[in-house]
Amino acid sequence: MAAKGFVCAGVACGLKAAGCKDLAIVASDSGPVPAAACFTGNIMAAAPVTVSREHIASGTCAAVVINSGGANACTGAQGIADARSMAAAVAERLGQAPTDVLVCSTGVIGAFLPMKNVLSGITEACEALGSADGTAAAEAIMTTDTFAKQAAVSVPVDGGCYTVGGMAKGSGMIAPDMATMLSVITTDAPLTPETCSAVLKRAVSSTFNRLTIDSDTSTNDTVVLMASGKAKGPVITKGDPRLSVIEDAVLEVCSALVRLLARDGEGATKLVTVTVAGALSEEAAEQAARTVADSPLVKTAVFGQDANWGRVAMAVGRSGVPFDPDDLSIAFAGIAVCEKGVSVPFDEEEAAVALAEDEIEISVSIGTGGYAAKVFTCDLTHGYVQINGDYRT
Amino acid sequence: MAAKGFVCAGVACGLKAAGCKDLAIVASDSGPVPAAACFTGNIMAAAPVTVSREHIASGTCAAVVINSGGANACTGAQGIADARSMAAAVAERLGQAPTDVLVCSTGVIGAFLPMKNVLSGITEACEALGSADGTAAAEAIMTTDTFAKQAAVSVPVDGGCYTVGGMAKGSGMIAPDMATMLSVITTDAPLTPETCSAVLKRAVSSTFNRLTIDSDTSTNDTVVLMASGKAKGPVITKGDPRLSVIEDAVLEVCSALVRLLARDGEGATKLVTVTVAGALSEEAAEQAARTVADSPLVKTAVFGQDANWGRVAMAVGRSGVPFDPDDLSIAFAGIAVCEKGVSVPFDEEEAAVALAEDEIEISVSIGTGGYAAKVFTCDLTHGYVQINGDYRT
Repeated sequence: MAAKGFVCAGVACGLKAAGCKDLAIVASDSGPVPAAACFTGNIMAAAPVTVSREHIASGTCAAVVINSGGANACTGAQGIADARSMAAAVAERLGQAPTDVLVCSTGVIGAFLPMKNVLSGITEACEALGSADGTAAAEAIMTTDTFAKQAAVSVPVDGGCYTVGGMAKGSGMIAPDMATMLSVITTDAPLTPETCSAVLKRAVSSTFNRLTIDSDTSTNDTVVLMASGKAKGPVITKGDPRLSVIEDAVLEVCSALVRLLARDGEGATKLVTVTVAGALSEEAAEQAARTVADSPLVKTAVFGQDANWGRVAMAVGRSGVPFDPDDLSIAFAGIAVCEKGVSVPFDEEEAAVALAEDEIEISVSIGTGGYAAKVFTCDLTHGYVQINGDYRT
Repeated sequence: MAAKGFVCAGVACGLKAAGCKDLAIVASDSGPVPAAACFTGNIMAAAPVTVSREHIASGTCAAVVINSGGANACTGAQGIADARSMAAAVAERLGQAPTDVLVCSTGVIGAFLPMKNVLSGITEACEALGSADGTAAAEAIMTTDTFAKQAAVSVPVDGGCYTVGGMAKGSGMIAPDMATMLSVITTDAPLTPETCSAVLKRAVSSTFNRLTIDSDTSTNDTVVLMASGKAKGPVITKGDPRLSVIEDAVLEVCSALVRLLARDGEGATKLVTVTVAGALSEEAAEQAARTVADSPLVKTAVFGQDANWGRVAMAVGRSGVPFDPDDLSIAFAGIAVCEKGVSVPFDEEEAAVALAEDEIEISVSIGTGGYAAKVFTCDLTHGYVQINGDYRT
């Protein structure tokens, strides 16, 4: 199942070790289409982010080129020139304008890309374009990811259907603003640049931007949505009832990708969802949930399969969100462990069984407010320390 | 070397396993003396914090009782009653008012203290009071600390001298507001309650509140300063030139304790200092330095002895502090690795030697502003995951 109107490819060009795929292209099969993108909030934004921000300003995009094995961040003027070269090389081979090509990079910060390899990889990938199967592309953008991440949904509309597909890479340096390194989402729905942007923003705010692996925000985060319009029907503009159908479909794909990203966080053994309810605003609920999800003490407790809810109470209490301690209640893996701010007896054996599952839900209520928010994370394990104590060398 | 006018004791009363010391008392040998205290900013403040906040309002204190083996946090009305019982028991045995006794607790959150043990420990500790040697007390307040932490300085003044001594416990759940679990500092300088408070606040802001082990702020953090006035000379009030002498001495003791706390953070193998200079305000410098010090990716790189400065650039860039990326420079363990936002060549072997040291300095400059700040932390290791994946069980 793939959105009509797109082709992709993934090849190996020597940026990663041992012949692993490391360069991907996702392209429209008919030139520029409406598109939108969200980028990292990090001041040290990488060169490809700077170039892609310029190129998406037009609201259209013909192709996205992505390399792993090097972030092209903290690389100054040379890095910008290299990112422009990547866009120009793709554009030339596909017969498009360079400004209709977006560029993404992921890998170690501070090193220059070996452009000879990159350019030969672009040539090879452009020749390989043609398959709608995104597996090779999804593999080529992996860094410390342990599996390729893809998701797709089709939704019926007006006798036809819209398909939304997406791929993402994640693993570490993943938090707040634009919470994954890279993701490309395609749809055949006939969106305009404006509705494309609105749909993406809504989906990102409750999915990618609600994910935190390690509270660190990458220099390269980028999510792109491209809409080929190859599905039947007239163009979807603001106010069209079909807009909510495609919004829900994009949200579903983003949610699925975010769950895969959390499950495959560096060293992760468990997917953790933290929900805070009873808040006076959605922002407050998110802030409290994010503080719990970022707490290394909560995350190591989950790794240790320990219903140590006092750490959840500590994290909500330090989140900066005001509440009455007597209103705090906590459920850990579905088991009520704290009510009205104090311990409630629970069966430690039942808790041990629940905590052995590979998905753990932490539910917190801080009062009678009408707002809730859910944040996705993973546990903090020896694997995370191992991977990141030994990444660059 | 100890401040004149104080006695202390540390005993075992069965709160921790295997006969370890777990209850300490530090007392004035002559009743209430001027004192000040700083407490956690966590909304879920523990019962002893609530009670001690009430008791220190008078500006005087005769004794501090501290137990490890249980935090008495998230324990509701029973917890408050237990903390009051601890103060009352100490007060009765020392012939003081309960409101002149401060109470501190540390350990697992959410469980009630076994008060029979606590009260018999208080009786025993009150009988053991008399020695000025704080070692037993410093041992009794340890949780996951691997060594007892004490520091002392004497400074000459007016032909006499002031002595400042202190003890602290730390290890994990240590960050922002009042960054250590517990510390008691004593001096024989003749401070008033007002100057006592001013001296403590100044010292804490640049020492304990600049320490982060794991970005998590405990429910029980407390630092107490007691001033016996047993040193020679008239009382020190606001504007007295001797105030800066005692301020510097308290600052020196707090700094020494904070370095010990960072070095003994849970699982730590290295003390890490992060200095950010060139900022437009001290707050901005601190915010940027704290973000670097809290970054799990920076901390695992230090553990891996890897000069992976790109992670420092990432952390400063996500800190929320505005700066021009072209103004960023970074030195890792004394070796310049990034200037004007891009990599500078460095000798990886020289870096490997420098990074093998047990104290690592990360120096960052973000511009030409006149403000700098230093934050203390440690590396993130397998030990941290081990300790916290397996703490409560």
